Amino acid sequence: MSLIKEYPISIFNSLTKEKEVFEPLIKDKVGMYVCGPTVYSDVHLGNVRTFMSFDIVFRYLKYLGYAVRYVRNITDVGHLVGDADEGEDKIAKKARLEELEPMEVVQKYTNGFHAVMRMFNIQEPSIEPTATGHIIEQIEFIKTIIGNGYAYETDGSVYFDVRKYHQDHEYGKLSGRNIDDMLSNTRTLSGQDQKRDPLDFALWKRADAGHLMQWPSPWGNGFPGWHLECSVMSTKYLGTTFDIHAGGMDLKFPHHEAEIAQNQGCCSKGGARYWMHANMLTVEGRKMAKSEGNGFTPEQLLTGNHKLLERGYSAMTVRFFMLMSHYASTLDFSNESLQAAEKGYKRLMVALKLSEKLPEPGTGKMDKEQSKDFKAPIDKAFTDLSNDFNTAKAIASLFDMASKINIIYQDPKKAASIDPKDFDWSIMHFQGIIKDVLGLHDETQEEGGMQVLDGVMKMVMELRKQAKFSKDYALSDQIRDDLKAKGVQIKDEKDGGMSYTID
Amino acid sequence: MSLIKEYPISIFNSLTKEKEVFEPLIKDKVGMYVCGPTVYSDVHLGNVRTFMSFDIVFRYLKYLGYAVRYVRNITDVGHLVGDADEGEDKIAKKARLEELEPMEVVQKYTNGFHAVMRMFNIQEPSIEPTATGHIIEQIEFIKTIIGNGYAYETDGSVYFDVRKYHQDHEYGKLSGRNIDDMLSNTRTLSGQDQKRDPLDFALWKRADAGHLMQWPSPWGNGFPGWHLECSVMSTKYLGTTFDIHAGGMDLKFPHHEAEIAQNQGCCSKGGARYWMHANMLTVEGRKMAKSEGNGFTPEQLLTGNHKLLERGYSAMTVRFFMLMSHYASTLDFSNESLQAAEKGYKRLMVALKLSEKLPEPGTGKMDKEQSKDFKAPIDKAFTDLSNDFNTAKAIASLFDMASKINIIYQDPKKAASIDPKDFDWSIMHFQGIIKDVLGLHDETQEEGGMQVLDGVMKMVMELRKQAKFSKDYALSDQIRDDLKAKGVQIKDEKDGGMSYTID
Repeated sequence: MSLIKEYPISIFNSLTKEKEVFEPLIKDKVGMYVCGPTVYSDVHLGNVRTFMSFDIVFRYLKYLGYAVRYVRNITDVGHLVGDADEGEDKIAKKARLEELEPMEVVQKYTNGFHAVMRMFNIQEPSIEPTATGHIIEQIEFIKTIIGNGYAYETDGSVYFDVRKYHQDHEYGKLSGRNIDDMLSNTRTLSGQDQKRDPLDFALWKRADAGHLMQWPSPWGNGFPGWHLECSVMSTKYLGTTFDIHAGGMDLKFPHHEAEIAQNQGCCSKGGARYWMHANMLTVEGRKMAKSEGNGFTPEQLLTGNHKLLERGYSAMTVRFFMLMSHYASTLDFSNESLQAAEKGYKRLMVALKLSEKLPEPGTGKMDKEQSKDFKAPIDKAFTDLSNDFNTAKAIASLFDMASKINIIYQDPKKAASIDPKDFDWSIMHFQGIIKDVLGLHDETQEEGGMQVLDGVMKMVMELRKQAKFSKDYALSDQIRDDLKAKGVQIKDEKDGGMSYTID
Repeated sequence: MSLIKEYPISIFNSLTKEKEVFEPLIKDKVGMYVCGPTVYSDVHLGNVRTFMSFDIVFRYLKYLGYAVRYVRNITDVGHLVGDADEGEDKIAKKARLEELEPMEVVQKYTNGFHAVMRMFNIQEPSIEPTATGHIIEQIEFIKTIIGNGYAYETDGSVYFDVRKYHQDHEYGKLSGRNIDDMLSNTRTLSGQDQKRDPLDFALWKRADAGHLMQWPSPWGNGFPGWHLECSVMSTKYLGTTFDIHAGGMDLKFPHHEAEIAQNQGCCSKGGARYWMHANMLTVEGRKMAKSEGNGFTPEQLLTGNHKLLERGYSAMTVRFFMLMSHYASTLDFSNESLQAAEKGYKRLMVALKLSEKLPEPGTGKMDKEQSKDFKAPIDKAFTDLSNDFNTAKAIASLFDMASKINIIYQDPKKAASIDPKDFDWSIMHFQGIIKDVLGLHDETQEEGGMQVLDGVMKMVMELRKQAKFSKDYALSDQIRDDLKAKGVQIKDEKDGGMSYTID
């Protein structure tokens, strides 16, 4: 039986507010869209958590055997300042301040974003489309919405008609807002406002001559509204109906609500069938925010260079720490919990290493109960992950497996009664879930090698000093020559000290 | 005096076929465009050489003090099969064969391209625009060319009118072709051909319904011709006249020739003032080509997994090897020359390390001649680099400096008579040119640590075995405990052997 069938996935669907069995539109294929970063500033930790959460979804679906087309966009234009869509395009504003071409700002922060994603081992999506790369598609989309009667043009801008839409559909379903109340309670619009109702949102905004990012359109020069690109790009690459749409919880309203309305307004289909939302970060119980002074960056978390951090934590420690909570729970940062995560991560890495050095199973009389017991934690880890991608529980199951691995490593004869099929299945998936699903690797081996080498070399030079001191020149020379053969040159200093260089 | 003034740059301009003093349009600012990769297959070594060549230009201009806007595009649509613009779009074809969305193919190979660029330490450009991200701009450009009388529409496609253009301008100047001969010698076009002349090239191609990549335009659904994007994107980000345009030599005709014609045809300006072309790769004297069976990939060069390669060569060895030739010369691969480059690279890295441990200069009586002599190689290296970016000669100068550094390191009193100002200037730029201009770093420290550590640990475990054998348990325990303090656990196996794990 395939893993897809053996461990059917259920997802908490934000749209229905229910946990549902996941059934993709096309057998064994999944289309998934995640709202990506706006690239006019450095990526923040909340983004990292969001993209890591859905990285797990991407990785787990693939691990089970699904073919996944994962689209995560780059918002490089159209994110307006202020809730009411007033004001300038943020990117263009920053560009002018920095005297840069907007696309140069975009490039800088896109590169930075990609570097942070790599640092935390978050996989690249299948397609990473940009808003500026789909202006034509956005214009065509708007034309269709206007044609369907759900948008209107005013003075070179186009707005989505929420009141009209709400007569035919349900605006507010995803975010759980009562739009009837909102529509009747909204202040009377001043004569200067272009919108018919304050709830209306821009699909296209007229650009002043000085606006740095603008394109010609049937309504004059302008730029697309921020909500539009995700409707357009998810439809283009995944279809008018697709499987999963995900993003941070802060995007539920108005962004995702607007997306659903745009999709319906254009294509008479609501887009995604399953909506997923990742929860927020807190620091020692308080919301993480720049204004609170508790918003450290990914870099600061690694270096420890922030007043709230006692020291730095490695990228894999942070990844492990984030996965210790379910994506739908808030995640609270504290030095204590990061240090606990570090211990847990290292414990898992030790077990991962030991899992490659285990004795041969099934050399004695097979015991069905013991075999079943041996594979139980991995069976449980799959069940945990298939239960709305619960990494927190899956990690607990992996720790159970780690204990079993430790016991067998210490006492190899315990492997004798375990069915090799169950044994191999468990070890293969223990390693697979850690590496391929959770995306954890042993950074001590890859990154810490130089520090360890330096420590070991200091000890070796101390040994050689001792040998010289006790006039054991044969040993002192042997050490020097052996090291040379291994690519390390020892240099004797005049003061009797030593230094080393690597060839 | 600033480095910009002290070491004025001259460039061999492919357009005038002369070496010219480089004078940017705006003081101390440079706009530079390089034709980037077509992302429908893996990047090949020729691309790596081209992008590395202009990486040096980018880095050296910045090192001298220029503010550089470096634009390198991604061709993700519109590269047609065949010289005569016939046939399908290559990307769309590949996508259909693989049953993939074209942008999924694009994403895969863009990621691969970026990974190879990082591997060889080739810096990211300031802006990396895509062809699909500039369809509107391309349509506007075509409209202007048609308005100026240099293009015509036939059956949903638009062609550039080379004959008409050549009446007013000089088509063929860059590539040195006699277009009058070509125009009169070309075969009579069959009645079915849409072009007025075989030399005409597509600005816009009509798309059949099944064509996967297409956009609406004033001429119906279609996609841009391959030559167009570079004219459009260089104009958008650098202006109608800008400083440097570079690319591989194989792009001179028709691509760059067409670019100049398009720029003139649209904007009455020719685009770049300085054209640079990187030369080809050969393997043991023969052109590198898939059909010749001698076209190894960047990965194969690193792993040695190709019949022509005796073994693998590190990324920094390959980078150093490529820089040992001037960009305008052919570069010939052979195991001998790669191994020679490896020795040279290591020699330079040793000198780089020593340059951080040099004695204090100027402690004795200053000697003007000696001071001047000390800085001469670095002065020469700047002159070499400013002479059309001659990395080959600059590396020779750096070797001269390396010798001087070796001498002073062995005999510190030789530093006493050197003026500290000259000394510090030379060492600073010796390090700066190696690291920042040539982009070389010491990979033994970064990447080879684990292998070296493993070698050293084998030796240490051997020492401990000896100690145990001679019943010196104090020493054997000391080694074990010291290692533990350094983060290495030694485990004694039952057979008397040892293994180690890193915490």
